[in-house]
Amino acid sequence: MLRPAFRWVRRVQPGSAAGAFTSRHLNNSASTAAPDNDSAPKLPPEVTIVEVGPRDGLQNERTPISAESKIGFVNRLAAAGLRRIEAVSFVSPKWVPQMADGAAVMAGVDRPPGVRYMALVPNLKGLEGAVSAKVHEVAVFASASETFSQRNINCTIAESIERFRPACAAAASAGLPVRGYISCALGCPFEGAVPPAAVGRVAEALLAVGCAEICVADTVGAGTPLRAAAALRAAAAAGVPLLRLAAHFHDTYGQALANILTALQMGVTTVDAAAAGLGGCPYAPGATGNVATEDVVYLLEGCGVRTGVDLERLLDASDYICGALGGGRLPAAGAARALLLRRRAAAGAAAQQ
Amino acid sequence: MLRPAFRWVRRVQPGSAAGAFTSRHLNNSASTAAPDNDSAPKLPPEVTIVEVGPRDGLQNERTPISAESKIGFVNRLAAAGLRRIEAVSFVSPKWVPQMADGAAVMAGVDRPPGVRYMALVPNLKGLEGAVSAKVHEVAVFASASETFSQRNINCTIAESIERFRPACAAAASAGLPVRGYISCALGCPFEGAVPPAAVGRVAEALLAVGCAEICVADTVGAGTPLRAAAALRAAAAAGVPLLRLAAHFHDTYGQALANILTALQMGVTTVDAAAAGLGGCPYAPGATGNVATEDVVYLLEGCGVRTGVDLERLLDASDYICGALGGGRLPAAGAARALLLRRRAAAGAAAQQ
Repeated sequence: MLRPAFRWVRRVQPGSAAGAFTSRHLNNSASTAAPDNDSAPKLPPEVTIVEVGPRDGLQNERTPISAESKIGFVNRLAAAGLRRIEAVSFVSPKWVPQMADGAAVMAGVDRPPGVRYMALVPNLKGLEGAVSAKVHEVAVFASASETFSQRNINCTIAESIERFRPACAAAASAGLPVRGYISCALGCPFEGAVPPAAVGRVAEALLAVGCAEICVADTVGAGTPLRAAAALRAAAAAGVPLLRLAAHFHDTYGQALANILTALQMGVTTVDAAAAGLGGCPYAPGATGNVATEDVVYLLEGCGVRTGVDLERLLDASDYICGALGGGRLPAAGAARALLLRRRAAAGAAAQQ
Repeated sequence: MLRPAFRWVRRVQPGSAAGAFTSRHLNNSASTAAPDNDSAPKLPPEVTIVEVGPRDGLQNERTPISAESKIGFVNRLAAAGLRRIEAVSFVSPKWVPQMADGAAVMAGVDRPPGVRYMALVPNLKGLEGAVSAKVHEVAVFASASETFSQRNINCTIAESIERFRPACAAAASAGLPVRGYISCALGCPFEGAVPPAAVGRVAEALLAVGCAEICVADTVGAGTPLRAAAALRAAAAAGVPLLRLAAHFHDTYGQALANILTALQMGVTTVDAAAAGLGGCPYAPGATGNVATEDVVYLLEGCGVRTGVDLERLLDASDYICGALGGGRLPAAGAARALLLRRRAAAGAAAQQ
């Protein structure tokens, strides 16, 4: 829009009306401008955010992060109100050196009541590590794309699921719920489009080996709402109850929030995100990675959907991990970037006074 | 997702299957993975994108851009298939020096059949400049927030609309359709939340002075889907036909595509965007500005909605203007960034061969 009197913008001081905009804007329910809900998008009253920054996010960052910094990050995430945190993985350090310190991280984190930590495990050995580390749930992963499965883990989709079977059985014995990721559910870097039917078949197989939750993942972040809807619908049709269906969307092409909105309108109530939009996409160097938790919280709370997450304390976690990543790292865009920049500007102005 | 065999990613060459991902992914209609439409989001078959990069985008960039570069940018946008382009404004150069060369820009642009250029005008004098420059349509602007109106243009909302009256009458005499922007429709930097009723009142007033199209604008980019829906609904209830209602959403907090999706689901078929996500937000320094045209095209074409825009040629325009802005300027995130980075990587690899 035209702003001919741009001059006033420069006169605005931190703490003024403009500086206080965000929190008042988010305070939707108390506002006289709260829209009626007659023809508004139908959304669930509450959504669980699964924070995947410490695992999926940091695994795809180039900078190695110490166990101590990971612990500091995880503790701040829990303090922000996140109740499910994918904190570590127990995979071969030969393949994923960034995650070799899972046991040390889990030994060091606070364990406030109600916070559940999840570990990614590829097999029985990983599961044993996760049990020793006293996580609350574990995750396994299969691909909806045969080519990706072959190129990524050197086996067919069916073989990968057979590998999980003993791990899933052991998890059941240990009383740990298992989440099953379906990677490449909205597209594959090799095959392009992935048929929703393939997502349905993997969902069915993951349910059959004992997964309690199915997470439809847009690994490359190239999906758009119709495709997201089709993949989620296929998983639901394969027998996944909506309450056990989760959406894991990367923001590589900027589509994540639109896809999440679509998932919520379908009745999905579990959404993955990574604080500060950590992570990246190996197929698009320099591009954004996981959808930022801040962006998801901003969307949801702005729509009156409860998340239990305190945005200010979430920014504490993001600020902390951005500092650990170094190099002036900041979220690329979105609420994560805008809110963190605003906070730093306010802190800088306060320091000068 | 876990990618233990990360090594293969480094083996992927431009032009390989992974490099060809995007275009194949977007080819939704020809794909065997095309979702059925039974429970998918209901979207219009076709959407008109109003490209606002040359005006709203460049006006909010710090780097001055020559008329020659603006002409090159506008011509590339038209070549990409954009059919409505907000190319210039005719406002006092004292207030908006970036836009002082509107007449020179309009004198230099190609005028391919079917492409309509729009000029922003604040008053009768601006309208006269626009008529002389042979634009095809003009735009006026009012705010839904009294405080913003006072701080921005030093008059009440009602006074601002009275100022447009002679310009709108003259536009009608000259046969130019008038678009009326409603700024701060989803929130105000001073007042916070803006009641949808205020949007409705301004819409009604703009219709009364002769506006043929009403554009609901989230000037600060802080809106979320429920608020977007409420503002659009208020404008519709004030008498704006859906076909004459447009959505102009900034991406400051990463919410633009979710808001656009909501608008489309309500039946809106005109959406504003700026190539490369040009522009910024004076209330969040360093934050993203207008929603990127690339992101919108990616969303829409990915959902089978026709835009008429050729994404590759749109990238030509974005690459060109990013070069003119200098400083290694790139879109901050989203499809605009990912696609431009991919293109440059491919060009770099080709140059090395």
